[in-house]
Amino acid sequence: MDRTGVASVLARRVRVSDPREAGFLIRSGAQGIYGAGDRLSRLIACLKSALAQSGDQDQSSEPDKEVFNFPPVMARADLERIGYFRNFPHLLGLVSCFCGDEHTHRRLSKIHDEGGDWTEAHQPSDLVLTPAACYPVYPALAARGPVPPEGYTAQVCSFCFRHEPSPQPTRLRSFEMLEFVRIGSPEQVLAFRQDWLSRGRDIFEKLQLPFEAAPANDPFFGRAAAIMQRGQKEQELKTEFLVPINEGEEPTACMSVNVHRDHFATALDIRHGNGGAVHSACAGFGLARIAFALLRWHGASMLDWPASTRAFLGDCG
Amino acid sequence: MDRTGVASVLARRVRVSDPREAGFLIRSGAQGIYGAGDRLSRLIACLKSALAQSGDQDQSSEPDKEVFNFPPVMARADLERIGYFRNFPHLLGLVSCFCGDEHTHRRLSKIHDEGGDWTEAHQPSDLVLTPAACYPVYPALAARGPVPPEGYTAQVCSFCFRHEPSPQPTRLRSFEMLEFVRIGSPEQVLAFRQDWLSRGRDIFEKLQLPFEAAPANDPFFGRAAAIMQRGQKEQELKTEFLVPINEGEEPTACMSVNVHRDHFATALDIRHGNGGAVHSACAGFGLARIAFALLRWHGASMLDWPASTRAFLGDCG
Repeated sequence: MDRTGVASVLARRVRVSDPREAGFLIRSGAQGIYGAGDRLSRLIACLKSALAQSGDQDQSSEPDKEVFNFPPVMARADLERIGYFRNFPHLLGLVSCFCGDEHTHRRLSKIHDEGGDWTEAHQPSDLVLTPAACYPVYPALAARGPVPPEGYTAQVCSFCFRHEPSPQPTRLRSFEMLEFVRIGSPEQVLAFRQDWLSRGRDIFEKLQLPFEAAPANDPFFGRAAAIMQRGQKEQELKTEFLVPINEGEEPTACMSVNVHRDHFATALDIRHGNGGAVHSACAGFGLARIAFALLRWHGASMLDWPASTRAFLGDCG
Repeated sequence: MDRTGVASVLARRVRVSDPREAGFLIRSGAQGIYGAGDRLSRLIACLKSALAQSGDQDQSSEPDKEVFNFPPVMARADLERIGYFRNFPHLLGLVSCFCGDEHTHRRLSKIHDEGGDWTEAHQPSDLVLTPAACYPVYPALAARGPVPPEGYTAQVCSFCFRHEPSPQPTRLRSFEMLEFVRIGSPEQVLAFRQDWLSRGRDIFEKLQLPFEAAPANDPFFGRAAAIMQRGQKEQELKTEFLVPINEGEEPTACMSVNVHRDHFATALDIRHGNGGAVHSACAGFGLARIAFALLRWHGASMLDWPASTRAFLGDCG
């Protein structure tokens, strides 16, 4: 949509610049953690279903997608094999559990009731909070043995966690992510990437949201970050679809298309039946962010949204 | 349903005694953590929608229910006020995050890559995994100020976490729970309890699942457990709807109706506008457990399920 189109949308609608004030988000006692009210929940469900349908479009070169929904936690051992702690230690959430006996519990309960630190007997468990919806898919498919000639195509959804407290609801710590994943030969994976770059444009155009697709990088930790980020950008491994949401701030990534090359396959020992290289890629959608973009650009009353947006979303109740 | 009815169902259908073997559940690298395949995801979505509709039934004595969906984590400070650690330390999951600098990260990355314990710089954060779907609702409603005369009725759904590893898929560590919550006068709360005891019977009868409604208790920790559990049973504070799922084992709680008296109101300083006592109660459903019960009793082919079951569930695709 060109800027003139955007301006005419703005003239017509009352935008929702803060979904907390409009009752779409329910505040909690922790930064970046919100409940969703009924209307936001319905909008997100609707988006999920519409995006899943765009993942169904005829792709004669791809096998039928398999659908997975994972819980918000995954095996720590799998994340260790993937090597997440090496690059993103600052974003990771470990699940810790109480390992004490009754005596310890009595002592710590007293400290708890006096407002002190009662967590000393908690130890890291075998679980972590899932950092990206696609992460549990790779170990699950690796367990099947060699990759078949047509590769795998999957759709996966889960709550994801990233420890980056922020006052902006566009940066939640716990949020629902829908992803499409391709595992196969380098050629199959590149075709998937091209396909989703084109589908992404189509989706944001239909939603009538102003957007830009731009080369991007992941938020690596520490001094090595600059090198990693430059490499990622130069090799065009990550493209973000950015939509302006927060007034006067940088636009927000609402979708990204990522090529992992052989990262996951090597880490998880996923091999091709034909002995060739196994690559992977994913296309991920931040459901709440797209919902906030829709509320920001088209207003709170879904019945008044542009016809093309409503047609894409189907019946949002 | 009487036992004769059950026997005739059994004669007709191939039961799914293990949803892992039948591909409904996707194994992960951690005990009690499973992904859901497409058919199980659809069944759970269907159940959620059907149960939400039974929560809509005309209740002239209740205010319209408010609908919330919360992420799988909540503010630790809220759980501390509720006092969960006092009674259920063994079930709690704390979220721990990395608090080290670059130097620490380099050192721990080396340990990580050598297969050692790389978690020493992780400290408990301000978040915990939500142990029951209704927990985030009380602080959210407490923030509104005094309870209005009609009280509150809410529907809430989230992934919940309980650290009780088990080989049985009927005891997941991370699972979706749908709850209905009532906050109001003791009389309003008791009416809600009676109402949901009756709705529960109606739901399991319509689903054509064999069930028993029985007084129950929560799994308190330690030596005080026996006393707490006896008190809970004697005062009829908890009723479980139990369905046989695992062959040769005790039946599984698929729904529970719980009266909290003034526990949450006192802990979170929720006051009534009229100065009277504030009580609360909830009716909770374990969505995956009910799905497993349906697969166990009616088989994998939903088209062959009893007409009353299908009518209750509506269109499951």
